[in-house]
Amino acid sequence: MGYICKLCKGRAVIYMHHHRLALCGDCYVVWFLKQVRRSISEMKMLFKGERVIVAVSGGKDSLSLWHALSRLGYEAEGLYIDLGIGFDSYSEKSKECTVEFAKKISRPLHIVSVKESIGKPIPALVRGSERSPCSVCGLVKRYIMNRFAIEHGFDVLATGHNLDDEVATLLSNALHWQIGYLARQSPTLPERDGFVRRIKPLYRFTEKETAVYAIINGIRYIEDECPYSTDATTIFLKGILNQIEERMPGSKLQFYTNFLSRARILFEREQAQKVNLRPCSICSMPSAEEVCAFCRMVERAGGKFVGLKVTKLENSQTDKGARTKDEE
Amino acid sequence: MGYICKLCKGRAVIYMHHHRLALCGDCYVVWFLKQVRRSISEMKMLFKGERVIVAVSGGKDSLSLWHALSRLGYEAEGLYIDLGIGFDSYSEKSKECTVEFAKKISRPLHIVSVKESIGKPIPALVRGSERSPCSVCGLVKRYIMNRFAIEHGFDVLATGHNLDDEVATLLSNALHWQIGYLARQSPTLPERDGFVRRIKPLYRFTEKETAVYAIINGIRYIEDECPYSTDATTIFLKGILNQIEERMPGSKLQFYTNFLSRARILFEREQAQKVNLRPCSICSMPSAEEVCAFCRMVERAGGKFVGLKVTKLENSQTDKGARTKDEE
Repeated sequence: MGYICKLCKGRAVIYMHHHRLALCGDCYVVWFLKQVRRSISEMKMLFKGERVIVAVSGGKDSLSLWHALSRLGYEAEGLYIDLGIGFDSYSEKSKECTVEFAKKISRPLHIVSVKESIGKPIPALVRGSERSPCSVCGLVKRYIMNRFAIEHGFDVLATGHNLDDEVATLLSNALHWQIGYLARQSPTLPERDGFVRRIKPLYRFTEKETAVYAIINGIRYIEDECPYSTDATTIFLKGILNQIEERMPGSKLQFYTNFLSRARILFEREQAQKVNLRPCSICSMPSAEEVCAFCRMVERAGGKFVGLKVTKLENSQTDKGARTKDEE
Repeated sequence: MGYICKLCKGRAVIYMHHHRLALCGDCYVVWFLKQVRRSISEMKMLFKGERVIVAVSGGKDSLSLWHALSRLGYEAEGLYIDLGIGFDSYSEKSKECTVEFAKKISRPLHIVSVKESIGKPIPALVRGSERSPCSVCGLVKRYIMNRFAIEHGFDVLATGHNLDDEVATLLSNALHWQIGYLARQSPTLPERDGFVRRIKPLYRFTEKETAVYAIINGIRYIEDECPYSTDATTIFLKGILNQIEERMPGSKLQFYTNFLSRARILFEREQAQKVNLRPCSICSMPSAEEVCAFCRMVERAGGKFVGLKVTKLENSQTDKGARTKDEE
């Protein structure tokens, strides 16, 4: 690249145009962790004594997040949701990366099987539903993540969403002016009845930046995109935003941070009066309707929710190998 | 094209994907005028007895607008601002198209010369200013249009902005979350102290749709883009929005109409408390600061505003040719 590290004058491995910053591998890791710490503090993500669970998919973002939280001293545990996507061995490969990483950092990993919990894996739910694959999968994951966190006494759920994810969602929400979604788009969604706090500590990093963090730290992650998402609108909008970034460097970060500092509150105020949650009459989780969207989707697709089926890999630091223990 | 007119089954000249509507030339003109009438009524643009002035540049949009307003029975007069852009004879050619059209529809045309009013044409103002060409030109045009309308007793100023113009501006404003601009972006900006009402009756039509209207009606217009604007961000953003429209037909119109119906009010409410106008200490026009942006720019560029220098072409329907009359 020919760039020199701004901090130590060594050979740079990354140049971040929007920050006008070139860094070598070691300095990059230090800078990355400092940014994560800053996001956590500025966005009031985590407080002393809280139990945090990281949703991990086996991809670069979530594994980097778990790695960074551990390096910063948070005793985060991992939650892997086995979606049961057999095409291209997608779920198998992503699980393998996750299990390997959990052992490496000696942290407990909880594995929830969609098929065992609902009776059908994601592909079968998609076939039985009228929703798009990404919509079904997102609904299932959000439900399981929150339910798991509540049932297992976690205070905070952390996900690996990066800047590219967030701006693509923001652009989509803005193109449709979906006030409700705009009101809820934030790196920190505070806890409320039936929901744990949800945080996205990597929201300031681009995809490239989380990938570089993973590579420098020797994290083996699944590089394949989900086989269902190849045509997804999100990928299209990411391409659009990359064109904008190319022409106006810094646009992506500015689009998101200006939204947070100036605009979100306006949508939130508008929405505050409208949202009214009650327990779903089937599963008791909070819902805007009599029956929640998850239960409606599961019923339509011919599944049946029988409770979360969880396997826990202890991976405790004193163990030689990982213990496996079935939980309720 | 192979399409059949939905109304008369004749050969269609246009297919509008987002409306799923193919029309022949005659039916298109009828449809176009109906849409303009609907916009005028829905957006409370014009009321009986009001005097309306159309800002005309010689391009397809503004000439189509003047044509449509005349066809709908509004006795609109035209205002052409001679920017003095000599490159490629841009101003000369655009003036020629405008004068020819005004004669053709036998309506009065007022011509304001920037050079005579401020002492310098646009290119010299740009050179003497720190603003971009489009910013200088926009500032000068908005100032002159409003001042002219007020000094000459017009109630309403109509401009030819089309859907592509509006969504490009909207996207730019959203990418920066410029609350003030978002609050004021509307097809109808109501009159207030020192400002006449500003309306954009063509806001529902794409560039292509106004061009087709102009062509069917035999309107000769200047096709060249302004020589200064070739690198403008607006053109880039229009390209971005065309990609989005291509993938998700109807996106542009939806982006704008949903903004109007759901989101704009939130920005407007937020802004209402903040804006405080007073007369500019130099020119007395309304200003957010002690000296207005126009007077500051003119001073910096070494110009001097000496009042609007207007030439009026009467083009009255009883005249054989156009009368020319100098106004103050």
